[in-house]
Amino acid sequence: MNKVFVVGIGPGGEAYTTPQARAAMEQSDVLCGYTVYIDLVKEQYPGKELYTTPMTKELERCRWALEQAADGRTVSLLCSGDAGVYGMAGPLLQLSEQFPEVEVEVVPGITSALSGAAVLGAPLMHDFCVISLSDLLTPWERIEKRLQCAAEGDFSICLYNPSSKKRADYLQKACGILMAAGKAPETPCGWVKNIGREGQEKKLMTLRELQDEQVDMFTTVFIGSSTTREIRGALVTPRGYEQKGI
Amino acid sequence: MNKVFVVGIGPGGEAYTTPQARAAMEQSDVLCGYTVYIDLVKEQYPGKELYTTPMTKELERCRWALEQAADGRTVSLLCSGDAGVYGMAGPLLQLSEQFPEVEVEVVPGITSALSGAAVLGAPLMHDFCVISLSDLLTPWERIEKRLQCAAEGDFSICLYNPSSKKRADYLQKACGILMAAGKAPETPCGWVKNIGREGQEKKLMTLRELQDEQVDMFTTVFIGSSTTREIRGALVTPRGYEQKGI
Repeated sequence: MNKVFVVGIGPGGEAYTTPQARAAMEQSDVLCGYTVYIDLVKEQYPGKELYTTPMTKELERCRWALEQAADGRTVSLLCSGDAGVYGMAGPLLQLSEQFPEVEVEVVPGITSALSGAAVLGAPLMHDFCVISLSDLLTPWERIEKRLQCAAEGDFSICLYNPSSKKRADYLQKACGILMAAGKAPETPCGWVKNIGREGQEKKLMTLRELQDEQVDMFTTVFIGSSTTREIRGALVTPRGYEQKGI
Repeated sequence: MNKVFVVGIGPGGEAYTTPQARAAMEQSDVLCGYTVYIDLVKEQYPGKELYTTPMTKELERCRWALEQAADGRTVSLLCSGDAGVYGMAGPLLQLSEQFPEVEVEVVPGITSALSGAAVLGAPLMHDFCVISLSDLLTPWERIEKRLQCAAEGDFSICLYNPSSKKRADYLQKACGILMAAGKAPETPCGWVKNIGREGQEKKLMTLRELQDEQVDMFTTVFIGSSTTREIRGALVTPRGYEQKGI
């Protein structure tokens, strides 16, 4: 079968991988992906050929998967979280224009916005935005504009890629932009690190305090809307049932 | 154990339910939820007590679950999609302030934004907003403001609850607001109906055409950003790898 599954395996171990994702990997001849993700799953799928590439080789990985499928093999291209949220589904579909004989199927997974929110409580209970602070592939001006609009719309916000060695002050800058655009400094916020993996950590704080937090690239950040509250140590954005008498 | 799991079971059948969600249901004494969701899972968990309530009785269901847990039982409160996105995690945590002896654990699931995006391709590949058009619990002015800000920020947008019998023209109104706020009428859009269930359907169209679509409450709507394109019948928002030579 000339087919590539692009598979979201969720945040960490098996507990988060859907049966649909398992079935895709089981019927594949080859599993390919970033080394860390292949290491997470390879013992569960013995007998599969494995193909790993380092972090920055995303396009080469997609092309390799499509070439393998063009040769008649079934391939699963693995993504952490969801394949369709800052994952490989997009670039794979774009490159697949050069491989019209190859079918592409996107298999969704639990992205960090959902798994991290569950760890913190229910910060994304109502309308929300997901924004990546990485400017590797996006001009910073566009990121800044989106932060401003998210603040003006009073959305809850989930930030991906809040920091890296080269971008150590980006979260600080983002908090400043949000406050300048109207988010109150007292807005309840939180972060989760290593979601669903060993060493999972979480912390709640205000937006003003978030500005001084040191986070790494394995951290997902949550910023409340004007209605978000801390309840029993959890971050909760009400849906509006108060008017019905919670 | 005095515990309520609030469990996202994903969009439809077993294929989308994570092992973490299965484990929560298996260790529960009672499964409770909206009648339709209990019907989806009850045969897989024989011997569990079942408690179902109709659509509008969300708070009663949360309170019942907490009361059962306070009596020493372990309860799974089921939500379709994710428990934390327009689900029951929020109201349950809010009500749990009255039940300090009860532990609440949120178990994430595949929400329609992710499962629907996978059916259409990769429309949420880059920064996106999720907005519900239901004004049952949210003033329409707030929804309108969020639509405007989402358009101004050039986000991809996923709309939940795009229509109902009482709100037959809300999607039409939303499309008008988005175009007035700068979304091009040619923006690629799509919808998915009955995601992961029998009778799943999808359709692609422009934003101008979306304005005249008739959709129901089982439909999730996707609106592209300025970079979203149709590729081989799929809706794709590029991540920006073009500059690296896709």
